[in-house]
Amino acid sequence: MVEEFLGSLRFSSEPATAVLDEAMRYSLLAGGKRIRPVLTLATTRALGHDPAAMLPMASALELVHTYSLIHDDLPAMDDDDLRRGRPTCHIAFGEDVAILAGDGLFAEGFRLVLERQEGEPERILRALRELAGAISVVGMVGGQYIDVTMEGELGEAGLRHMHELKTGKLISASVSVAPLMLGSPEVATIGLRQFADELGVLFQIVDDILDVTGTQEEMGKPKGSDERLGKRTYVSVLGLERARELAAESHTRVHRALEQVSPALSGDADALEQITDFIYMREG
Amino acid sequence: MVEEFLGSLRFSSEPATAVLDEAMRYSLLAGGKRIRPVLTLATTRALGHDPAAMLPMASALELVHTYSLIHDDLPAMDDDDLRRGRPTCHIAFGEDVAILAGDGLFAEGFRLVLERQEGEPERILRALRELAGAISVVGMVGGQYIDVTMEGELGEAGLRHMHELKTGKLISASVSVAPLMLGSPEVATIGLRQFADELGVLFQIVDDILDVTGTQEEMGKPKGSDERLGKRTYVSVLGLERARELAAESHTRVHRALEQVSPALSGDADALEQITDFIYMREG
Repeated sequence: MVEEFLGSLRFSSEPATAVLDEAMRYSLLAGGKRIRPVLTLATTRALGHDPAAMLPMASALELVHTYSLIHDDLPAMDDDDLRRGRPTCHIAFGEDVAILAGDGLFAEGFRLVLERQEGEPERILRALRELAGAISVVGMVGGQYIDVTMEGELGEAGLRHMHELKTGKLISASVSVAPLMLGSPEVATIGLRQFADELGVLFQIVDDILDVTGTQEEMGKPKGSDERLGKRTYVSVLGLERARELAAESHTRVHRALEQVSPALSGDADALEQITDFIYMREG
Repeated sequence: MVEEFLGSLRFSSEPATAVLDEAMRYSLLAGGKRIRPVLTLATTRALGHDPAAMLPMASALELVHTYSLIHDDLPAMDDDDLRRGRPTCHIAFGEDVAILAGDGLFAEGFRLVLERQEGEPERILRALRELAGAISVVGMVGGQYIDVTMEGELGEAGLRHMHELKTGKLISASVSVAPLMLGSPEVATIGLRQFADELGVLFQIVDDILDVTGTQEEMGKPKGSDERLGKRTYVSVLGLERARELAAESHTRVHRALEQVSPALSGDADALEQITDFIYMREG
């Protein structure tokens, strides 16, 4: 459902910006796991609502996530040539176009919600507030700043904080926008947020493990790129064995959080459970 | 009023992102002309409302404008070392920090409106929709793309279109967000939009003239930087004399548009008139 919706998006209908549109769609449609929009739709289902009605908001999360990947890959940042098994945006289209493709996806993410998301205005504003906070200096951009500037200086607490900002807040927002948009009872909103916060932690630990143990095919980018950049990861700070233990513990906590909130959910939470296991099991 | 509000903004309260906050404020508080927020406040006054109530929305326009300047100055884009008489953000803080400072100001602009702008939710959404459209692929980002990729290939019509997207739409939005937020009658909203569209044209013609005739002190950046980049401007396409004629004609049209809308304005439009003349006269 998400893939089809994303594939249907066009950002420009005029020839002068056709290549910019192409660059944006090149990165957007590179076959990511779509974890963020899928989380929004699964949460919507768990709350007893029709996921289709949430597609603009869910897809906006993927547009914004894709913008962050394009900018993270730039030569001045992580300088990555491969992403999802294909040349990164700046390799394929040039650095100037890649910067603008990122900026464009950022703006188009908000525009998608503002022009196509139906719902009560007050609730749409609440969900957008959650999104804007998650990608701001106290969220994703701040986390990325710490990541690129603090190489090698972070302890375990600092590492966890960096990841919480860089990845965790957007993962968490992907869940939270659903109850905010749907006007769900506070007990559901808060319980789902606890679930989502822990899910963000699990996601990042597994990601760090995969950077060491995954194959290039599985990762879609060269193995060990964190190590090459001298980045502190759960594996480099704690070792592979301890990181795996942490992942298992986190996985348990995610399931427990989901169990705790389930009495407040009027719909089917199976999909949320499956995403949790998918995130954990891809560690393999 | 705007300057004080902008100066009061802090984007981070934690040490780990203090330098990112500093880079954002370095560019935001570099003493620009504040034409966009001043337009919003002047339009609010012309509509008979208190400008102070519109400060978050007005300031968001300046945050977003500043983000675009930081990214435009990057080595992969216009590669400018000076902006407003000071080293550009990437010269002062490094390219990685500059990219993130731009991304951060973008997010914080939306966050400022979503967290601090008061008003009816439906109207806030309408104003944000205007803003998002103005900076998207069919607005600022699209215009910047045409500017960096189409060097030397644009005729007068293409040049005007590029400027309309790159600069015009955000100038226009700076006016339009006020009637949208205030729920003004349609005749005022439409009349003000016509005024704002022409004002955007005037602004750009004068800017192109200043790039040739202004001193480095007046411009805050090296004279002739458009020429150095081989950019097509109103002056390079039409010559200085014809560009000056166009500016005078445009100035007349802006005044006429303001006269036409004035019966629909219940407040004092003097400030709007003064901004128009300021934009024109800085050509000097």
